[in-house]
Amino acid sequence: MAAKKKTLNVGMVGYGFMARAHSHAWSEVAQVFDTGYHPVLKAVAARSTGKAQAFADQWGYERVESDWRKLIEAKDIDAIDICVPNDLHAEIAIAAAKAGKMVLTEKPLARTAKEGKPMVDAVEKAGVPNMVWYNYRRIPAVTFIKQMVDKGKLGKIFHYRAAFLQDWTINPDVPQGGTATWRLDVDAAGSGVTGDLLAHCVDTALWINSDIASLTAMTETFVKERKHAVTGQMQPVGIDDAAGVLARFGNGSLGMFESTRYARGHKAAYTLEINGEHGSFAWDLHDLHRVSWFDHKVEGPLRGWSSIHVTDGDHPYMGKWWVPGLSVGYGESFTHQAADFLMGLGKKKGAAPTFRDALETNRVCDAILASGKSGRWVTL
Amino acid sequence: MAAKKKTLNVGMVGYGFMARAHSHAWSEVAQVFDTGYHPVLKAVAARSTGKAQAFADQWGYERVESDWRKLIEAKDIDAIDICVPNDLHAEIAIAAAKAGKMVLTEKPLARTAKEGKPMVDAVEKAGVPNMVWYNYRRIPAVTFIKQMVDKGKLGKIFHYRAAFLQDWTINPDVPQGGTATWRLDVDAAGSGVTGDLLAHCVDTALWINSDIASLTAMTETFVKERKHAVTGQMQPVGIDDAAGVLARFGNGSLGMFESTRYARGHKAAYTLEINGEHGSFAWDLHDLHRVSWFDHKVEGPLRGWSSIHVTDGDHPYMGKWWVPGLSVGYGESFTHQAADFLMGLGKKKGAAPTFRDALETNRVCDAILASGKSGRWVTL
Amino acid sequence: MAAKKKTLNVGMVGYGFMARAHSHAWSEVAQVFDTGYHPVLKAVAARSTGKAQAFADQWGYERVESDWRKLIEAKDIDAIDICVPNDLHAEIAIAAAKAGKMVLTEKPLARTAKEGKPMVDAVEKAGVPNMVWYNYRRIPAVTFIKQMVDKGKLGKIFHYRAAFLQDWTINPDVPQGGTATWRLDVDAAGSGVTGDLLAHCVDTALWINSDIASLTAMTETFVKERKHAVTGQMQPVGIDDAAGVLARFGNGSLGMFESTRYARGHKAAYTLEINGEHGSFAWDLHDLHRVSWFDHKVEGPLRGWSSIHVTDGDHPYMGKWWVPGLSVGYGESFTHQAADFLMGLGKKKGAAPTFRDALETNRVCDAILASGKSGRWVTL
Amino acid sequence: MAAKKKTLNVGMVGYGFMARAHSHAWSEVAQVFDTGYHPVLKAVAARSTGKAQAFADQWGYERVESDWRKLIEAKDIDAIDICVPNDLHAEIAIAAAKAGKMVLTEKPLARTAKEGKPMVDAVEKAGVPNMVWYNYRRIPAVTFIKQMVDKGKLGKIFHYRAAFLQDWTINPDVPQGGTATWRLDVDAAGSGVTGDLLAHCVDTALWINSDIASLTAMTETFVKERKHAVTGQMQPVGIDDAAGVLARFGNGSLGMFESTRYARGHKAAYTLEINGEHGSFAWDLHDLHRVSWFDHKVEGPLRGWSSIHVTDGDHPYMGKWWVPGLSVGYGESFTHQAADFLMGLGKKKGAAPTFRDALETNRVCDAILASGKSGRWVTL
Repeated sequence: MAAKKKTLNVGMVGYGFMARAHSHAWSEVAQVFDTGYHPVLKAVAARSTGKAQAFADQWGYERVESDWRKLIEAKDIDAIDICVPNDLHAEIAIAAAKAGKMVLTEKPLARTAKEGKPMVDAVEKAGVPNMVWYNYRRIPAVTFIKQMVDKGKLGKIFHYRAAFLQDWTINPDVPQGGTATWRLDVDAAGSGVTGDLLAHCVDTALWINSDIASLTAMTETFVKERKHAVTGQMQPVGIDDAAGVLARFGNGSLGMFESTRYARGHKAAYTLEINGEHGSFAWDLHDLHRVSWFDHKVEGPLRGWSSIHVTDGDHPYMGKWWVPGLSVGYGESFTHQAADFLMGLGKKKGAAPTFRDALETNRVCDAILASGKSGRWVTL
Repeated sequence: MAAKKKTLNVGMVGYGFMARAHSHAWSEVAQVFDTGYHPVLKAVAARSTGKAQAFADQWGYERVESDWRKLIEAKDIDAIDICVPNDLHAEIAIAAAKAGKMVLTEKPLARTAKEGKPMVDAVEKAGVPNMVWYNYRRIPAVTFIKQMVDKGKLGKIFHYRAAFLQDWTINPDVPQGGTATWRLDVDAAGSGVTGDLLAHCVDTALWINSDIASLTAMTETFVKERKHAVTGQMQPVGIDDAAGVLARFGNGSLGMFESTRYARGHKAAYTLEINGEHGSFAWDLHDLHRVSWFDHKVEGPLRGWSSIHVTDGDHPYMGKWWVPGLSVGYGESFTHQAADFLMGLGKKKGAAPTFRDALETNRVCDAILASGKSGRWVTL
Repeated sequence: MAAKKKTLNVGMVGYGFMARAHSHAWSEVAQVFDTGYHPVLKAVAARSTGKAQAFADQWGYERVESDWRKLIEAKDIDAIDICVPNDLHAEIAIAAAKAGKMVLTEKPLARTAKEGKPMVDAVEKAGVPNMVWYNYRRIPAVTFIKQMVDKGKLGKIFHYRAAFLQDWTINPDVPQGGTATWRLDVDAAGSGVTGDLLAHCVDTALWINSDIASLTAMTETFVKERKHAVTGQMQPVGIDDAAGVLARFGNGSLGMFESTRYARGHKAAYTLEINGEHGSFAWDLHDLHRVSWFDHKVEGPLRGWSSIHVTDGDHPYMGKWWVPGLSVGYGESFTHQAADFLMGLGKKKGAAPTFRDALETNRVCDAILASGKSGRWVTL
Repeated sequence: MAAKKKTLNVGMVGYGFMARAHSHAWSEVAQVFDTGYHPVLKAVAARSTGKAQAFADQWGYERVESDWRKLIEAKDIDAIDICVPNDLHAEIAIAAAKAGKMVLTEKPLARTAKEGKPMVDAVEKAGVPNMVWYNYRRIPAVTFIKQMVDKGKLGKIFHYRAAFLQDWTINPDVPQGGTATWRLDVDAAGSGVTGDLLAHCVDTALWINSDIASLTAMTETFVKERKHAVTGQMQPVGIDDAAGVLARFGNGSLGMFESTRYARGHKAAYTLEINGEHGSFAWDLHDLHRVSWFDHKVEGPLRGWSSIHVTDGDHPYMGKWWVPGLSVGYGESFTHQAADFLMGLGKKKGAAPTFRDALETNRVCDAILASGKSGRWVTL
C-alpha cells in the first residue's frame, strides 16, 4: 500500500549515460518491486544547468542545482547518487558521507585503491548505507549462477574465466578527454579497459568464485596518440587499450581475464565461465537471459550444455516481471540493484557491493596495471 | 522541455498481466522518448476495487473506479486502455468511442471479426485515435526486419513461416475459466492458441509480408475436459490447443504457421522467417535482439547467416536507450508502441495497428478456425 | 580376423554423386566396423563406359560394364546397388531380385507407390535382402533420438515437425533434365522436393514417431518454365518447387512438414523436432552431431534445452570412431547404414528401411502430391 | 587413371588411436583426392604382434613386424608413419631419415625442442620429405580462415586467442602411464596439456597469425598423485594439468592461450578467434564446419557475426566431397593432410608443417613450461 512506503529522496550528480540508467532504475523500482520505499527523483546537480535542466525535465527531477555541494547541503535529499567521471567520485562521496547522506556511486569506486580507501573510511565512519553500481551482478542470469554456485552445484572450482571485449576505439580518430570520451583520458578515468571493463569481470569473479591471491598481466596501448576532444591537440594516450590477466584465486582455482576495445565485432561482449568438479556455468551479456549449464550428474549419453532461459518466476528477480520466456533488459540490472539497496535499508544496511567490497576490485585492478608494467606476478 | 508537453490522461480497464505491461509502458515512455506528450496514469477501473486499489498504489494511478463506465464518463480521461478478457473488448471500446475517448485495446481486437467490425465502425465514426497492442511489431529486431524488407533487401518473397510454441497447458490439471486461466475458456477468449498466439504471428506477417489470400488449417484440442477454475466442475474444453496453417499470401509467397501450448520446453517461442530472392531474415523472441540475416550478395565463400545484435543507435528505437550491445526487454515493446501512438497524436492519428488493421487479423483467425473444422481451404 | 570375414561383392549401377557416397561407405565400413563381411567393389555399370572407367579407377572397382544387365547376370556379384535416376529403379531392382541378387537402391524407392509396389513384391518373392538408402536415419544424432524416444523419454507425443530447405533453384537459368539436373525433370524424378527432400523427412518421421493417418498439403512451382539441359529448349516445369504439409499421425500427434528449394541461405537444412509430454528432441543436419534435448524432469530453475554433442563412445555408432568431441560427417551415415546391412546379413536379413518400409514413404509422398492438387485431406 | 598413379608404401609404427586416424586417411585419400599417388598400407610394426596383427587385419595392412627397425630396413617401404608415444619419436624418425625414408610423425615433434632439433637435422640432411600431423590446420574451416587472413580480410591484427578445454582427468582415479594413459606420464609425454593440446593451438596460431616473440605462463597440476596404470602404485604426477598463457606475437598482436583437462563439460573444445582492424574470425572444433566472421565493411545496421557453413565447392577441400551443407568429420582433417603431403611429393617436397615448422611449436611449448615454473616472461 502506497501510504505505508517510506520516501527516499535521490540527489543525482551528473546527467550522462549512467545518470540515465540510474534514473530509469529509481523510477522503475518504485512500480515493480515491493521494497517498502518510494524513491523520488528530487534534484540533479551539474555545472551546466542547461543540460541539467533538460535532463531533469526528461526524467522528472523536481529541481536542478549547479553544484553538487548544494545537494549535500540540502535537507530534503536522502541519498547522493554519483554519475560523474571517476576522478570526481572521492571528493563527492566523502563530502556526502560526512553530511550523513547515503552514498551510491557508479563503478569503479575510485581510480585507484589509494584513492578509494578514504571513501570507505568515510562511509563506514559515518555509518551511512553505501553501494557501488556494479550492475552486472543483478542481471538475473548472473545472480542465478551465484545462487547455484553457493548451493554447491559445482563442487570444487578449477577454472574461472571472463572477458569484456569491445571495438569502439579501433579508429585512431576517436578523441580522448571531453564529455563524451573521458573514458580515454587517463586523468579522468584512472585507467582504460582495466577500470572500465575488467573491473566488472573482477567484481563478479570475487563475488561468485573467490578472492584473488596473485596475478600477472599484460597491458597494451595500441594507439599511442589521440587528439584531445576539447583542445584538438594530439597528446600521448595514457590508458591501457587492452589487458590480459592470469590469476590464482584464493580457493585454488585458476583465472583468465581479458579486456580490450580492439576486438572487432564485439560491442559489449562480457562473457564468463566457471568450471567445477560437478558442473560448469557460462554466460554472455549479449544474450543476457541465457545461462549455459553443464551437469555432470545427468545420465551419460544425455549429458550436454543446457541453455537455461532465466525468465521463470522462480528465477532471481523475474517473479516480479512478465511470464516465462519474456525478457528484461540492461536497464533492469540497475533496477534490481536499486531494489536490493532499498530492501537493505529496512535492515539498516544498503546492498553489496558496498564501498568496501568495491575497494577490493580496485586493489585487483591496481595489481593488473602494476604487473602490466613490471611483467611480474603480484601478490594481493 | 516539460512545460511544452501535452498531458494524456490514461484510464485503465483491468489490473492483470497486460495492465501491468501497459502501465509500465506509459510510465517509461514519458522519460525515454520525446513524443510531445506526457501520459498520466489517471485512473484504473475494475469490479474488485480492492485489487484495483492495490494495483493503483503500485503503479501510481491517481484513483480507482469500480466500473469502467465511470472512466468513460470522466471528463479528465483522454484515453481508455482496455486490458480485460476478450469478450469485454467490444462493449467497452464502442462505449468509449461514442464518448469521444481515444481507445486502445489489448489484442486481439475481438473474439471474432463479426464482433470486431462494430468496434472499427465506432472508432472510425467517432474519429478517435485507436490502436490494438500487437506489441511484437515494436520489438526493435522485428521493426528492423520490416524496415529492411520495405527497403527491398529481399526482392521477391517466396516463403514466410512463423510459430508460437508454449507448453504450459500440457498438465490436464490446469483449470479453465476464472481470472488467471480465462484464456482457456472459449467464451471469454473466443479461441485458444489461434486468438492468443497465432494472432501475433498473423499480425506480423500481414505487416511485414502481405495480405493472406487463402489458407487451410488443422486444429486440435488435446485435453478434452478441464475443471472450471471457479466452480471446480469438469467441463468440455472449447478452445483449440494447437493449430497448423498452410497459407497463400497475396504477393504469391507461401506461408506456414503453427501454434501450440503442448510443445514441451518452449515458453514463449515466437519465431519467424522470411525468404526472398536476395536474402532471408529470421527472428526468435527468446533472443529478442538478434536478427538472422542471409545476404546472397556477399562474396560466395564468405556467405553465411549473420547474427545482428539489434542494439545500435541506428537500429529502430535503440537510439533512445543504452549503448551498442545493451538490451531492452519485452516491456519496452509496449513502450515503443506507446511512443508511436503518442507521436501519431501530433499528426492527428494514433499508430498502427489500428482497429481496422487488427480486424484483418481477426478475419484470418476466423478462417483458421473455420478451416480447422471443415478441412477445406478458405478464401479471404 | 580377416580370414573369417565373408566377402560381399558389390555391383554398382551409376557413377554420380550417390554412387560416390555409397562407394565411400562400402570401403570405410570394411575398416571401421566389425560386420563379419568384407565388401568388395567388384564392378560398376554405366552406359558411358569412359565415365564408368574413370569412376572405377578412382574408387577401386575391379571392372566396368556398359549395361547393368551384365551385373545382374554376373556370377561374382552378390549385391546390386542402384544409384541412377528414380525412373530406372524399378526395372533394375526387379531384374536383380529375380536373379537372386541382394538389392539396394538410393531413395526414394520409386517415383510412385504404384511403381514401387512390384519392386517390393519382387524382393519379397525372391527372398533377397533389400534396403533403401534413407541415410539420415544413421546420422548418430538421429539414431540417438530414435533410441531415446523408444525408451519412453518423451511419453505421449503431441507434435512432430520437420523441414528440408534449400535454395539452389531460385535462379531461373538452372536447367532441367540431363545428367546433372535430372532432379528437376518430372519424368526422371517423379516429383520435385517431395520425392527428393520431404521423402527423407517422412522416412524419419515414420521411423521415430508413427504412421501418418491423414494429411493435407500445399505445393507450388515458382518457376514455370526452364530450359532443358540437353536440348536447350524452354519447357514447362513439371515438378513441385515447394511443399507444405499438415498431418495427423496414427499415434494422435500432429505433424508439420515443409520443403523447398527457394529458401535463400539454406543449403541442406533438414531440421526436425518432436515434442512429448515429458520432453522434446530437436536436430539440424547443418550441425549434425548436436541434439537439442529438453527434459521436463530436471529441477525447475535449471531446466533448459540441452545441446548434446553426440560423439561419445556410448552414442550410436560412435564407439567405433574417435574420442568424445570429434565428429564424423555426412558420408558416415552411409557407412553406418552399410554396417547395419552387413550385420543384418548374418541374421538372414538386410536392414531397415527395406523396400516395404520405403514403399510407405512413397505412399505418403503420393498423398502429398495429390492433396497439393486437390486441396483436400487425404486419408492413408 | 589408376595406371598412372605412383605407389607410396606406408609403414606404420603403432596401432593406437592415432594409427587408426592415419590409416583411415591413407585409405580415404586414395579414393577422394587426385594426388598422383596411391598409398598402400604395407606394414605395421609393434612389439605386441598379436595386437598389430588384429590392427593389420582390420585396416588392411599387408604384413606385421615386431620391431619398427624392420620397417626401416624394408626395401618395399617408402614412408614411415610414427604413431607411438612422444618419447619414441626421435629415435625412430632419425633412423628412418638415415635410411632415406620419408618420415611422418604424430604431433608433437618431440617432448622438447632439444629432443626435436636432431630430428630436424636428420630429415634435412637426408633430404627426405617430412611432416608432423598437426591435423587441425586441415579442418576446412581452419584452412579457410588462414586463406582469408592471408588475403588481407582482417588488416592489422590486434588479438589472437585460443583454448583447448577437456574434462577427462578430473577423476583422480584415472591412472597415469601404461598404454591407454601414457599422456599422463611425463616421461612418455614430455608434458601434459601443453604438449598435447596447447601445441595444437600454438601450431595454428603460428601458421595463421605470426611468430610469438615473448610469453608468460601459469601452469598447474590439480591432482598431485595418481596410480600407475601398470604397477598400481601411487606416484607423483609430473605433467601440467592446466596452462594459461599471455603472449606477444611478432606482428604486434596480443595472444591469450588456455588449456586444461579440468573444464567440466568440454570434450575437445578447441576454439580460436582472431581480431583485426577490418574484421574477425572465430572457430570451434565442436562445430567444425562453422566459421564466425565479422565484416566491418558491411552496411552499419546490417553488421553482425556471420556463421559460414564451410561446405561449399569453393571452400578448401570441400570440392572433392559432397554438396553444400553436407559435412566431413575429424578423420578427414588427416585425409586432407595426407592429400597435401602426396601432392607435395610431386613437387619434391612434403607439406607443412615440416619437422622444422613443428620444432618452433616445441620451442613455444618449452617456453610455456619454463615460464610456468619461473613466473617470468620468456623471450623466444
